[in-house]
Amino acid sequence: MPLTAEQAADIDAQRAQSAPTRRAVSPELEEILYEALPVLDHGFVRVVDYMGNDEAIVQSARVSYGRGTKSVRNDAGLIGYLMRHRHSTPFEMCEIKYHVKLPVFVARQWIRHRTANVNEYSARYSILDREFYIPAPAQLAAQSTANRQGRGDVLEGEEAAWVLDTLRRDAETAYDHYETMLNEGEGADPDRAGLARELARMNLPLNIYTQWYWKVDLHNLFHFLSLRADPHAQYEIRVYADAMLETVKRWVPLAYDAFMENRMGGASMTAGQIAVLQRMLAGEEVTRESSGLSARVWDELQAVIRT
Amino acid sequence: MPLTAEQAADIDAQRAQSAPTRRAVSPELEEILYEALPVLDHGFVRVVDYMGNDEAIVQSARVSYGRGTKSVRNDAGLIGYLMRHRHSTPFEMCEIKYHVKLPVFVARQWIRHRTANVNEYSARYSILDREFYIPAPAQLAAQSTANRQGRGDVLEGEEAAWVLDTLRRDAETAYDHYETMLNEGEGADPDRAGLARELARMNLPLNIYTQWYWKVDLHNLFHFLSLRADPHAQYEIRVYADAMLETVKRWVPLAYDAFMENRMGGASMTAGQIAVLQRMLAGEEVTRESSGLSARVWDELQAVIRT
Amino acid sequence: MPLTAEQAADIDAQRAQSAPTRRAVSPELEEILYEALPVLDHGFVRVVDYMGNDEAIVQSARVSYGRGTKSVRNDAGLIGYLMRHRHSTPFEMCEIKYHVKLPVFVARQWIRHRTANVNEYSARYSILDREFYIPAPAQLAAQSTANRQGRGDVLEGEEAAWVLDTLRRDAETAYDHYETMLNEGEGADPDRAGLARELARMNLPLNIYTQWYWKVDLHNLFHFLSLRADPHAQYEIRVYADAMLETVKRWVPLAYDAFMENRMGGASMTAGQIAVLQRMLAGEEVTRESSGLSARVWDELQAVIRT
Amino acid sequence: MPLTAEQAADIDAQRAQSAPTRRAVSPELEEILYEALPVLDHGFVRVVDYMGNDEAIVQSARVSYGRGTKSVRNDAGLIGYLMRHRHSTPFEMCEIKYHVKLPVFVARQWIRHRTANVNEYSARYSILDREFYIPAPAQLAAQSTANRQGRGDVLEGEEAAWVLDTLRRDAETAYDHYETMLNEGEGADPDRAGLARELARMNLPLNIYTQWYWKVDLHNLFHFLSLRADPHAQYEIRVYADAMLETVKRWVPLAYDAFMENRMGGASMTAGQIAVLQRMLAGEEVTRESSGLSARVWDELQAVIRT
Repeated sequence: MPLTAEQAADIDAQRAQSAPTRRAVSPELEEILYEALPVLDHGFVRVVDYMGNDEAIVQSARVSYGRGTKSVRNDAGLIGYLMRHRHSTPFEMCEIKYHVKLPVFVARQWIRHRTANVNEYSARYSILDREFYIPAPAQLAAQSTANRQGRGDVLEGEEAAWVLDTLRRDAETAYDHYETMLNEGEGADPDRAGLARELARMNLPLNIYTQWYWKVDLHNLFHFLSLRADPHAQYEIRVYADAMLETVKRWVPLAYDAFMENRMGGASMTAGQIAVLQRMLAGEEVTRESSGLSARVWDELQAVIRT
Repeated sequence: MPLTAEQAADIDAQRAQSAPTRRAVSPELEEILYEALPVLDHGFVRVVDYMGNDEAIVQSARVSYGRGTKSVRNDAGLIGYLMRHRHSTPFEMCEIKYHVKLPVFVARQWIRHRTANVNEYSARYSILDREFYIPAPAQLAAQSTANRQGRGDVLEGEEAAWVLDTLRRDAETAYDHYETMLNEGEGADPDRAGLARELARMNLPLNIYTQWYWKVDLHNLFHFLSLRADPHAQYEIRVYADAMLETVKRWVPLAYDAFMENRMGGASMTAGQIAVLQRMLAGEEVTRESSGLSARVWDELQAVIRT
Repeated sequence: MPLTAEQAADIDAQRAQSAPTRRAVSPELEEILYEALPVLDHGFVRVVDYMGNDEAIVQSARVSYGRGTKSVRNDAGLIGYLMRHRHSTPFEMCEIKYHVKLPVFVARQWIRHRTANVNEYSARYSILDREFYIPAPAQLAAQSTANRQGRGDVLEGEEAAWVLDTLRRDAETAYDHYETMLNEGEGADPDRAGLARELARMNLPLNIYTQWYWKVDLHNLFHFLSLRADPHAQYEIRVYADAMLETVKRWVPLAYDAFMENRMGGASMTAGQIAVLQRMLAGEEVTRESSGLSARVWDELQAVIRT
Repeated sequence: MPLTAEQAADIDAQRAQSAPTRRAVSPELEEILYEALPVLDHGFVRVVDYMGNDEAIVQSARVSYGRGTKSVRNDAGLIGYLMRHRHSTPFEMCEIKYHVKLPVFVARQWIRHRTANVNEYSARYSILDREFYIPAPAQLAAQSTANRQGRGDVLEGEEAAWVLDTLRRDAETAYDHYETMLNEGEGADPDRAGLARELARMNLPLNIYTQWYWKVDLHNLFHFLSLRADPHAQYEIRVYADAMLETVKRWVPLAYDAFMENRMGGASMTAGQIAVLQRMLAGEEVTRESSGLSARVWDELQAVIRT
């Protein structure tokens, strides 16, 4: 359970408040506002604020004075058109703010997306909690032999047990020493000075949890999700992306549909792949050899066109 | 009056709507939400959405689970500290969206601020209205003789009359020809094809009005305002910045105060200027000659320390 | 001819200089460095600096200590892979700086690409030259009837003549009045004060030429070119993109090939379009009606798969 | 010593190469190009490419056709003016690319600066080396009692010895287990599958070294350096900033001087502090109590004006 009683109470108190607004509202998202959606063993994603909704995308695209909406069907058509033709600016007109708790090694991948605003909990200033990500047994995968950047079969038996035990033990030991170095709070040794927080943290492992506020516009969120909800993304960040996709579905259902149709379910083809497709559609039997494509590009084409 | 009856009705209709939200609300800003605040002869600024308030800045800075506020006094102190020490990320956690109507030459200065989202009315796709900025007589300034990038005395008499008359006449002529080139709508000549909109617009002058949705976070808005509400900014963009400052005051009054105290009312000093200050405070009579500063840097120091 | 004798001499002087460097060099680009490549009637694009080459992309992708290159064939394969799989950061490691002279209405489209650095010639500070874009007769297109944002047939006869004549005459008149308002230089009337430059410029039309230094990384340049060298882009910006494509071909030939193969010559497909493709490849005769696609999405598919 | 023999040879080979270029060159920086400047116990900074020099800043500011330089003295004056008046775009016209080896906890602070391009060595794809940052004894500071985000006195005796020993031992143990989990290379146990690299890395501590290519423009580099070469920055990142300052001095000596004079050696004053200064300069004896400033703001003023 990722929340302390005090944190849960803070969240409940904030959820209990309501005030009238003239702004665009997304009722489905309001329902889960501030709620911590669990991810991994100690992590979560929670939406703490948002700006705009599907109508606001349309309104911005039309630079309109009023709500700008004619009908849901028209809006869906326009939003699909904007998505297909890479009109990014109307999607930038919606903004969302998340509070995320996540392992440091996931945070390091995440922060590579630069077009977002971040406030991270500071381990220079504060003390991190004793919480580490330990994979579920089903996630304890071997190195892929086909792909240097992927996972193969799941480890089993003694090897799996040893890995899990070692991850736990090393993390606990490192945290014990972190606390002893800090020498703060009750139980502190009055004869020792205690190491500066900004130094002691360096003993902690990369699976310790951190947290941040992360704010992004919808266009850049879609870009993040298209990379991180992709099957090639590392599982530990993909589960965050999946949880966020659910929040997007509540927030901007029309834009979500357009995104799933055009980006997540879509594909890009190279000039060479299109030429092969055209030959195939003209009835020619094209093989890898006769295609003129490299083996890798051929395989990527097969992955798209084979059901 | 910058609005047509239809536009005013659209705005009124949107202002009449209200819905409950769990999000942070800024009641003073809600009061004027969607209202067109007049700027120049045909322009306006209106807030069409916002995210966050003073409490949200504090909440983000603390990466907190609940509202994060202890007291208004504490919040003001923290916000002032964050501003003074250039902690930009908590201010990035607030976002505001404006609808602005402005002359093209002002839009060209404005767009130089790149860290914002923009949707501009498209003159490739649509027809621009017959509205031009004509300066009020009090703004009809001569070129400054002291500053190549500034204004001097106000023009008077025949010269002023001729300038105003010429600006008006050239704009009207250009717009008449624009309409004739387009050859659209009632009165169109069926024997002519009409020039493409994307071409015809090139005949229009730089004082024609355009409009856009412009969305920005508070940190970057403060940066924009510190440059554009500055006395050295061109008058025609400064009046927009001034109108926006009023909206910021309603939206995040504590951050506004911190901004006025630290940035708009503050000053930067060079190492050399500080050394001169120290000598002055030690009782030395420092002159421009004995200061070791260049004339320009000396004058800039005087501008700060002379009441 | 876009250059004065003095400007041409300045460019020649700079081209005549050479110095040794240990940096990555792109010899084909060096050949045309600083040269003004003519675009439209008075515009140009010229490369004034660059950083990196194809090898630098590979080197960055590998975070290598040395040149990082194994063979041109390996490099081409890696660069193609990076491009296909949207690894943007290695392409960001190359940078190019252009000096561009372009009509203001083109500059207004161009500046919408925010991830670049810009220094524009200031009409607040300086006086613009008497140079306007007047379309060649072959570019004088009517409004498209099929596409609100496009061009149709070329205007002819009297209508074409009147448009060209009007564009010229209005521009000349506006510039004459601009000069009179400024009242500067030889011929200035000592009895008039002269209007401030920052005001007088508002009388100028959108087809007047401006110029800027524009610096961008290769990833963002490819994004710009994919939108602006596209057939749907307005002709007047597309010719700039085309000229820049030639400079990219000289600079990073392998990345250029990958870009042309994957982006310019490639296509994106939606989930629905892929499903239709799969049915077609399985031998089914699919029509617009049986496809389940909207008319527009069906047409976009046809445009890709029909030779 | 941060480099292997192979790495050093790669660097020497690249340093040995030279080619003519027409581009702006910075001879002082060429001298140390590619050289690894040691930082901390295993880290380094090395410049691997650059674009522009002091003249290029001037050239861009003037949007000039030729070199744009009149004299070094004029250039220095203009660059100082641009810096003082926050004209950021001319400084954006210079670009530099570093290869940096640094502990992960330093990389996490560093990456918060988003306006830069990064290619980091991937621990999903590759295996990290057995290298950890262990502070020198003189850097083993206690937590500051005055500032929650700072360091106090240096630890001594047994406490210091225990901390250093524990940091080393925990890091070695974690790395031993990382290697065992991976089960790769010589000595791999054929009966175990080996954990995926992307998972095994989570056992590593935050003081392990990573490396990246980091490219930034001069304006944003100055912003980075103003925060990270500041005495309030954590020592472990400040030493990187200090090493980079030396490279900037070689690259753009005039801009470096302007930066040191205006930013590093300068100070910002609030409206309240300026009012107090004015009273002091008018001869009034102002105390903390009579100043009207908060204790903190008063102290910050004293820090500037007391020699």
